[in-house]
Amino acid sequence: MCNNCQTKVLQAMNTNHSSFERGFIERRELHANDVAIDIKYCGICHSDIHQVDNDFGNAVFPMVPGHEISGVVSSVGSDVTKFKIGDRVGIGCFVDSCGECEYCLRGDEQFCTKGVVVVFNSTDYEGNNTYGGYANNIVVKENFVIGIPDALDLAAASPLLCAGITTYSPMKKWNVGPGKKVGIIGMGGLGHIAVQFAHKLGAEVTVLGHSKSKQAEAAQFGADSYYLTFDPDTFTALAGQFDFILNTVAVSLDVNAYVRLLKVDGVMVYVGLATEPQEFYVGSLFGNQATITASNVGGIAMTQEMINFAAENEILPKIEIIGADQVEEAYTRILNSDVRYRFVINMATL
Amino acid sequence: MCNNCQTKVLQAMNTNHSSFERGFIERRELHANDVAIDIKYCGICHSDIHQVDNDFGNAVFPMVPGHEISGVVSSVGSDVTKFKIGDRVGIGCFVDSCGECEYCLRGDEQFCTKGVVVVFNSTDYEGNNTYGGYANNIVVKENFVIGIPDALDLAAASPLLCAGITTYSPMKKWNVGPGKKVGIIGMGGLGHIAVQFAHKLGAEVTVLGHSKSKQAEAAQFGADSYYLTFDPDTFTALAGQFDFILNTVAVSLDVNAYVRLLKVDGVMVYVGLATEPQEFYVGSLFGNQATITASNVGGIAMTQEMINFAAENEILPKIEIIGADQVEEAYTRILNSDVRYRFVINMATL
Repeated sequence: MCNNCQTKVLQAMNTNHSSFERGFIERRELHANDVAIDIKYCGICHSDIHQVDNDFGNAVFPMVPGHEISGVVSSVGSDVTKFKIGDRVGIGCFVDSCGECEYCLRGDEQFCTKGVVVVFNSTDYEGNNTYGGYANNIVVKENFVIGIPDALDLAAASPLLCAGITTYSPMKKWNVGPGKKVGIIGMGGLGHIAVQFAHKLGAEVTVLGHSKSKQAEAAQFGADSYYLTFDPDTFTALAGQFDFILNTVAVSLDVNAYVRLLKVDGVMVYVGLATEPQEFYVGSLFGNQATITASNVGGIAMTQEMINFAAENEILPKIEIIGADQVEEAYTRILNSDVRYRFVINMATL
Repeated sequence: MCNNCQTKVLQAMNTNHSSFERGFIERRELHANDVAIDIKYCGICHSDIHQVDNDFGNAVFPMVPGHEISGVVSSVGSDVTKFKIGDRVGIGCFVDSCGECEYCLRGDEQFCTKGVVVVFNSTDYEGNNTYGGYANNIVVKENFVIGIPDALDLAAASPLLCAGITTYSPMKKWNVGPGKKVGIIGMGGLGHIAVQFAHKLGAEVTVLGHSKSKQAEAAQFGADSYYLTFDPDTFTALAGQFDFILNTVAVSLDVNAYVRLLKVDGVMVYVGLATEPQEFYVGSLFGNQATITASNVGGIAMTQEMINFAAENEILPKIEIIGADQVEEAYTRILNSDVRYRFVINMATL
């Protein structure tokens, strides 16, 4: 018998964005190593929309999206050592992994060979569907809980759990730091956080944007320069300039044009998921030994490192806090690129 | 007045492969830091054919191709310290660079910001056209001369100066060694040397070939396994297997299929120059954070390291030695993939 397992949620009943309804689900009773969290805020990520839209063909409805979760620990299992009631914590994209494979052992749980358990619209190792953060509480193994330092606002911290780690992880892998020149393609939900990380990691940062209207804000986030991607002169002026380019946009690009902006041995990393095929000439890569790659969130240890780094360096997503009744409108505005820069649902409105 | 500068050459008079003629050119008189070399052998590289065919639009005729040169030092300038008359030496793809830019200083002369001087069909810093290794001698600055250890046969060593460094350099950059699984796409002029390097560097080596007829030889070169690229089962059997794939073929590939053969953080390196655009889905890179890149020969210091490694580990290109009169036929056979595995011209026949 579960006493406190009933959870109020905002659930999509089908692929229609107008189908969100309030309802109730049961969370599992706490296992010995589980933490229960009162959810205070949950960010909206574009991939929430992909899931609701069944873009990957695996949607199970009703669906409770949300993988940018921040809140406060409300109870802990008997074996929990890392967290106590009242701790400020977050949950990101995944909530379980095998813990034994080479990827889990090196802290890249997202590549678990057994298959990482995603926080929503996934199946856990007991065969149960998972429900995410558009809810007033959640139960998660303590090893998948991130501590949020007091210096970080809980609402603004929530997008860091996905958008933050997604942009921080490739910068660490490819050694972004002092003396490096970094280009950030797109200054949206991911890009505006990426600019802050790259700047605070000590790099010289250029934003490659499609709108002049964001130039002033880019400077506030720490960008040293701002170039417009629709201006052909941009690609002449910046030729051979960058050690690292992070592509945060999910639309097709002229790959050959962008790799020419890289220095010898420079790297262009995709974190935005364009769905059309991308084309490149092998000859475009030879001149500077350019590298094209992608990055897929990051492990739990690096997520904690990222949150700590953000707290110490005053990195904050710029957010628009909305109520549960505004999710449908938020989805529409995200699809229209009409948000600066990330929506966060205040779960007190649920 | 230059006493010994006249050099017998085999020169292409135009883009017709039948236009090769014997002739004479003048090499420069030795500068203080120059070395003159009696050329004994010169390998034929597919890129010789590209240059003769004017595929890059920069052909100057008469053209003396050849950038896989081995021979013996015949005289040295007054300031030369590294070489003496009688030394066995080689010359690869380039013969001068600025020596001062960041790339020259780190030993990557091929990326010299002033522009590296290529051994043939290029312009040196005095504005003179360069003439390559289909010749009986050449004059080169000592800093661009590679010493060839006694253990290496001079004829078999010549292809190492291009095909060898081209395959060795990316393996060193991407840490091929014990515990790593390596795939080599194509076992031709580049591939058969790549297999030997990867094996002797301690990796487990799989050849991805298009012909069963090369399987036995692959094992002799050190391959642990051999799979056929036209067999769809190959792509199932090898999914997620490789840390490193070297693509040595110059034809279009199904990029998405090959990156699925990589482990997490695996790397696919192009050294063959397919001229058609290559297509990939960003989604194909996300699952394993696959990297696509290219590699462009290697610097002088690494070329010397490669030659020494080859000598110590009995790595030898398998060659077919031809006379100067057979170059036209050799070009045809290369274009028909009818060579195992590299043609080398015996310059005594010139």
